[in-house]
Amino acid sequence: MTGLRHHGQTLAFDGRGQGFLPITAAVDDAIAAAGFRQGIAVLLALHTSCSLTINENADPRVLDDLQAHLAALVPEAGSRPLSGDGPLRPYRHDDEGPDDMPAHIRTALTCTSLSLPVAQGRLLLGTWQAVYLWEHRRQPLRRRVRLDLLGS
Amino acid sequence: MTGLRHHGQTLAFDGRGQGFLPITAAVDDAIAAAGFRQGIAVLLALHTSCSLTINENADPRVLDDLQAHLAALVPEAGSRPLSGDGPLRPYRHDDEGPDDMPAHIRTALTCTSLSLPVAQGRLLLGTWQAVYLWEHRRQPLRRRVRLDLLGS
Amino acid sequence: MTGLRHHGQTLAFDGRGQGFLPITAAVDDAIAAAGFRQGIAVLLALHTSCSLTINENADPRVLDDLQAHLAALVPEAGSRPLSGDGPLRPYRHDDEGPDDMPAHIRTALTCTSLSLPVAQGRLLLGTWQAVYLWEHRRQPLRRRVRLDLLGS
Repeated sequence: MTGLRHHGQTLAFDGRGQGFLPITAAVDDAIAAAGFRQGIAVLLALHTSCSLTINENADPRVLDDLQAHLAALVPEAGSRPLSGDGPLRPYRHDDEGPDDMPAHIRTALTCTSLSLPVAQGRLLLGTWQAVYLWEHRRQPLRRRVRLDLLGS
Repeated sequence: MTGLRHHGQTLAFDGRGQGFLPITAAVDDAIAAAGFRQGIAVLLALHTSCSLTINENADPRVLDDLQAHLAALVPEAGSRPLSGDGPLRPYRHDDEGPDDMPAHIRTALTCTSLSLPVAQGRLLLGTWQAVYLWEHRRQPLRRRVRLDLLGS
Repeated sequence: MTGLRHHGQTLAFDGRGQGFLPITAAVDDAIAAAGFRQGIAVLLALHTSCSLTINENADPRVLDDLQAHLAALVPEAGSRPLSGDGPLRPYRHDDEGPDDMPAHIRTALTCTSLSLPVAQGRLLLGTWQAVYLWEHRRQPLRRRVRLDLLGS
């Protein structure tokens, strides 16, 4: 396969607040519209308080448990002391409310950039995989995701 | 360097249960077989309960400590309460046993997709780096990893 | 856009010890020097004790809170027991001191490889995003980051 080309565009998503927004179909639509059959898709969330992640596409309890566990690892109340015992230490950055700094940390502990295979004109994923925009802020926000395609 | 091409294939690995399976050599073999000298390799684990990760290739105690720490951050018994104190909250999704939901969370906290440089016909890694399939389920499973090469 | 080409090079950074070293400008300089206008940039930290991450470029308190939270999730003193209670379990791998094994774990919980869009001759990032080399070792170290460009 020769004659590769590149195509870049920005997708926008109207969020619904904290949690998982499936974006696989929107990416597949963009791949089809750009006329790509095979290659790779590179996705970047253009924000520092939401993630891109791949996880279970079937049982919604998986996403609920994921959300709850990340909330416990990165509580809104602050960071655990190094000793492991005692009260949580409040964050210093809280300009936009109690969900501000946890959102930055949750982003750092997950992924903002994904590289994915494209085959037969769409994302090639495992049977149980879906791509999600993982919103860490509480309020509904409009989010932008850059999509770059390399292939043919 | 012009005349780039794309090659995609799926690699299969017979796992040995929870822990680290080195896959650097298998990826290098595929790069050589496909005749690539330079470019990039994109890897995607086609599952939601194992990761791809890069870490120490020398001292096996590093991998043991990594496994133990992730097990403590994402215990099989459930999530820590938001207060930090009190009993763990059991997961709601446990269809496939106590290692089911923790595997999804451990996957989300690490990586399933990696983009790596290819040079001189193989992966270009740091001196102490190896690529691992990080299995989070207890039982031995056959796992598939998609490999896409872009380069020449 | 056709006629894609590939360019690979290794960037070196003189670190300042644990924390965040901004590398966006250095990557942008390399993109310009290599004459790329659009495509993707693939970055790989060639080490197992530092990460590449994207986060806030404005308020330095975000980076301070990030550092503190990761230090609490992966303490130098060891891993939390699975029960959640009781003393931390020391790491087995400590060849290079108390910051050795935590650095490997912190690397595994973040990212070492990033794929990013290139447009108009530089990285295309969100308004508040910067790319950082996140050093997890205490001492200043010289770190190498591989940069691969695919595009035109």
